[in-house]
Order: sequence, then structure tokens, then C-alpha cells
Amino acid sequence: MGAREKAVSRRIRVIGIGSGNPDHMTIQAIDALNSCDVLFVPTKGEEKAFLAELRHEICTRFITGPMPRLVHYAVPKRRADGDYGAAVDDWHDAIAAIYEDLLLSEVAEGETVGLLVWGDPMLYDSTLRLIDRLTARARVSFDHDVIPGITSLQVLCAEHRMPLNRIGAPVTITTGRRLADGWPEGASDVAVMLDGVQAFNSVADRDATLTWGAYLGTPMQILRQGRLGDIAGEITATRAAARAEHGWIMDIYLIRASATEADSDGEAA
Amino acid sequence: MGAREKAVSRRIRVIGIGSGNPDHMTIQAIDALNSCDVLFVPTKGEEKAFLAELRHEICTRFITGPMPRLVHYAVPKRRADGDYGAAVDDWHDAIAAIYEDLLLSEVAEGETVGLLVWGDPMLYDSTLRLIDRLTARARVSFDHDVIPGITSLQVLCAEHRMPLNRIGAPVTITTGRRLADGWPEGASDVAVMLDGVQAFNSVADRDATLTWGAYLGTPMQILRQGRLGDIAGEITATRAAARAEHGWIMDIYLIRASATEADSDGEAA
Ligand SMILES: C[S@@+](CC[C@H](N)C(=O)[O-])C[C@H]1O[C@@H](n2cnc3c(N)ncnc32)[C@H](O)[C@@H]1O
Ligand SMILES: C[S@@+](CC[C@H](N)C(=O)[O-])C[C@H]1O[C@@H](n2cnc3c(N)ncnc32)[C@H](O)[C@@H]1O
Repeated sequence: MGAREKAVSRRIRVIGIGSGNPDHMTIQAIDALNSCDVLFVPTKGEEKAFLAELRHEICTRFITGPMPRLVHYAVPKRRADGDYGAAVDDWHDAIAAIYEDLLLSEVAEGETVGLLVWGDPMLYDSTLRLIDRLTARARVSFDHDVIPGITSLQVLCAEHRMPLNRIGAPVTITTGRRLADGWPEGASDVAVMLDGVQAFNSVADRDATLTWGAYLGTPMQILRQGRLGDIAGEITATRAAARAEHGWIMDIYLIRASATEADSDGEAA
Repeated sequence: MGAREKAVSRRIRVIGIGSGNPDHMTIQAIDALNSCDVLFVPTKGEEKAFLAELRHEICTRFITGPMPRLVHYAVPKRRADGDYGAAVDDWHDAIAAIYEDLLLSEVAEGETVGLLVWGDPMLYDSTLRLIDRLTARARVSFDHDVIPGITSLQVLCAEHRMPLNRIGAPVTITTGRRLADGWPEGASDVAVMLDGVQAFNSVADRDATLTWGAYLGTPMQILRQGRLGDIAGEITATRAAARAEHGWIMDIYLIRASATEADSDGEAA
């Protein structure tokens, strides 16, 4: 609240809203949402309609005071050609420039802007990197904070009623693109997000256990679990059918290698 | 609600309560808490007083109907001698036997029991393994569900306002005991929990960035970040002093290796 008391600077709140179920909202996120004068709202993506609806539901259900002003902006396209890293870099810069303009034109000094982030802002999301870029550009001064939200990985485990890790053992979180390049060295439990290529099909350990979920937390939720060799084909087909039906899909999975149970370590009951 | 409608079976709800801040409670967790007739409450650990206070605050603040009955039980001690895996196994069996007895003696058929779990039940917590054991023992029939909660890892990242992963790159979550055995093969970003030995001191990469937090989400919260070689000593000292002051500590950290920035991959803004 320092920023508002001094009323010299804008404030940005990066708010994790959970992974598809409005009931994932925390009290902290609800309070943060209620402190916002403005929300920046991206318009993009295939899953646009669903996301917009969820955001609308969250706002109407949890905001108790006046509605913040909604400032919509079009998310620029990322260059698909050339160097991937450079393309992401340019893309981040373009979005940071948009934020900068919107902060200066749409947000008064002393006001608070909310950025609603799917899941948790820490996990495969670029909002915090954009904020760092805004800071580096130094054209507009602001302070900011971050409110965690329930990630899709947590919903996957909760809905399957299973632990992420084996007793005291490590877990690797990675992307489909990385898994397609090969099983992570030394890993025995791997959580995979952002998989457009169904990289589980390339996993050699057919006896591994595959735990999969799509549209987690939403009314469209689908869950599957079984021996990778037995269910990989079914999941690929289910995924394609669901994607065709809804026009978009978000899915995530966990692979437990079939190798010997990992060593134990301390856990609290 | 199927179980309650049929009133034939007990129901167990495993509820993640977040990592120290009552505002981490989600709407889903609050609703689940309000559906409980009974809460099983462990009495144990050094951090007992703080945990008991947090639980009390969560119950009085969020339960809108009558208070559930509290059923306290003493957590048995884990054998420290001999084979670690066998000791954990025996320990889990002993707790499962306690749950079983309490379910039969303290919970009527059709009633709902809540187990409040620190952080998220998926992460380095044995409650879900205990439930699987209860199912396997088959002496008492029940159904159960799991409600995710904000993990300490999310609070670490949120309070430091930083992403967990580098762009499109993997992350390893592990324990202090494992890290003390050596840096995880192939990893460049490692989150470490359950560290009683300050394993960061054994990391060879002194140029890595160490991001540390203790008592996250609580009024005692401490944050430190810097070059590992520069701040490892200070953190070790700060940790020892805080532990002496409070009588207990919970801390967690993230190490980003100094090696070349990982390759990029797709992320949503
Ligand atoms: C750009 S990342 C954002 C992750 C998000 N920040 C989180 O905390 O879960 C998008 C990826 O998250 C996963 N994901 C997000 N929401 C999901 C959901 N409701 N069901 C299944 N997977 C989901 C998918 O792997 C998807 O490709
Ligand atoms: C038995 S594990 C339970 C983890 C919990 N289920 C979670 O989701 O965070 C306990 C470990 O979690 C971490 N931890 C839990 N709460 C914490 C807090 N408030 N601050 C710092 N570390 C915490 C510490 O590494 C601690 O050793």
C-alpha cells in the first residue's frame, strides 16, 4: 500500500488466478483483485472465449466494490521464422512497449493495475519477465507484487489424488519440446507442460506410468492414467477428438519411470 | 457429495491450506473445510505452536457453520536406526492404523473428515500415501478427494517476484539430502526443500544465483538473494540465528546455475 499512500507511482499486481476453476482463487488473490483500479486484458488465442468467460466470472463473482476499468490490448504475434530466442526477445519487447504505453495513457499515478495470470505467474509464463523489461526500460516508474495461484500441475495431482514426488525423490518439470529431445538425464519422475507434439509417444520406457489431464479444473476436464505403452495411443486420440470438439486444448502430464522405486527421504505426515 | 447422499461411507477430504499465510486459502479449500464434520489434528513437531495457531485461525476465520469436531492424535515417532526405507514404511503403517481406529471410533458413516495439509498435498507430504495404505488395508471403506493448496515453492517465487523456470527450460525439485549427494545431472535450475544440512554450501558453482526464503507467508518471513558464493555464509548464519530465536525453521531455495542461459521455448504472455 506504500505506493498508494505516497500516490507518486503506479502499482502493478501480478495475480495468479488458478488453472480453470474460479474456486482456485485464493483470499490473497481476491483481495489483490479488489485493490485494482484497472485490469489489463489481453485479447488473443484460440481458447479466447473460455478464458474471457473465466475472467469475467472471476471479476463479477469476487469483486465487491466498483469494477476496475478494463483496458484491452491485442497481443502481438511472435515471429515464427529465424532464431527462436531472438523472436521471443523481440516479442517480449513489443509487449513491454504496449504495457508502457497503456500505463502512461490509461493509468493515473497512484493507481493500481492488475494482470491476471493463468495458474501461477512463476510457471511457464512471461508476465514477470515483461515486468523486468519494463523496469529496465525505465520510462515509467512503478512498484509491483506477485500473488501465487494454483498451477495446472497441482490440479493434475489433486484430481488424480496422487503425490507429485516419490518419497523424498526429485521431480523434473519440463516442456513437451524438451521431452521430445530426450528423457531428462537422471530423472525418474517428469511433469510435462506445453506439449504440442505428444512427446510421451517418444518415451522409450513403455512400462512407465502416464498420468494425464486436460482442461483441468473446468467442466470439460478429462483424466487418464495407466501404463504408458497401454494408454499413449488412447490419449493421443482422446486429445485430438477433444481439441477438434472445443477448438483448443490445454493438457499436462506426469511420467513416473518404471525403474526401481527411488530412495526415501523425510516427509511430514 | 455422492457419499453423503448415500450415507453409506465415510468421506476423507485432503485439504491444502497453503504455506503459512491464511490468505493462501482457496475458495475450494474453504468450501471443503466447511463440509467437514470432523478434523483430524496431529500433535507433533517443534513448529507445533505456530501450526496449531495457524490452523485455529483458518478454522475460526473461514468456517461459517458449526465448528467440526477436532480429533487430536499423537504422531508416532519414526525409527531413526536401521534401514531408512523400512522405517518410513513402518511409520506410515502406524499412522494408517491410527487413522483407521479414529475413523471407526470417531466418525460416523456418512460423515466427512478433513485432513489439513501444509502447502499442497502433492509435494513432499505423506498424507496421500497414508490414504492409499488405508485403502489397501480395507478395514474401513471411504471415499476421498484432494484440494490443492499454495506450495512454499510458489511463495518463494512470488515473494522474490521471479519465475521458477527460465524461458521454456526445465526445473528440478529436490531435497537437501539429495542435493548434498551431488548436483542433479543435467539440471540448471534446482528448487530445494527439506534441507536440514544447508546443502547449498556443497554446490561447486559459486557463481550460481541462490534465492532463499524462510517462514514464507508468515510474519517471520526472511528473504535473501544473491551470488551463491557471496551469500551462502550469510544465509547459514541467518538461518541458525532465526532457528535459535523461533525454535524451528522452514526454508526453501532455488539455485540457478551460472551456465549459459537455457534455450527458449513457448510461453504465453
Ligand atoms: C503457458 S503455460 C502456463 C502454465 C500456468 N502458469 C500454470 O501455472 O499452470 C500453459 C501450459 O500449462 C498447462 N495447463 C494450464 N492450464 C491447464 C489446464 N487447465 N489443464 C491442463 N493443462 C493446463 C498446459 O501444459 C499448457 O500447455
Ligand atoms: C514436509 S515438506 C512439505 C511441503 C508442503 N507440502 C508444500 O507444499 O510446500 C516441508 C518443507 O517445505 C518447505 N516449506 C514449507 N513451508 C515453508 C515456508 N512457509 N517457508 C519456507 N519453506 C517452507 C521447507 O523446505 C520444508 O522443509
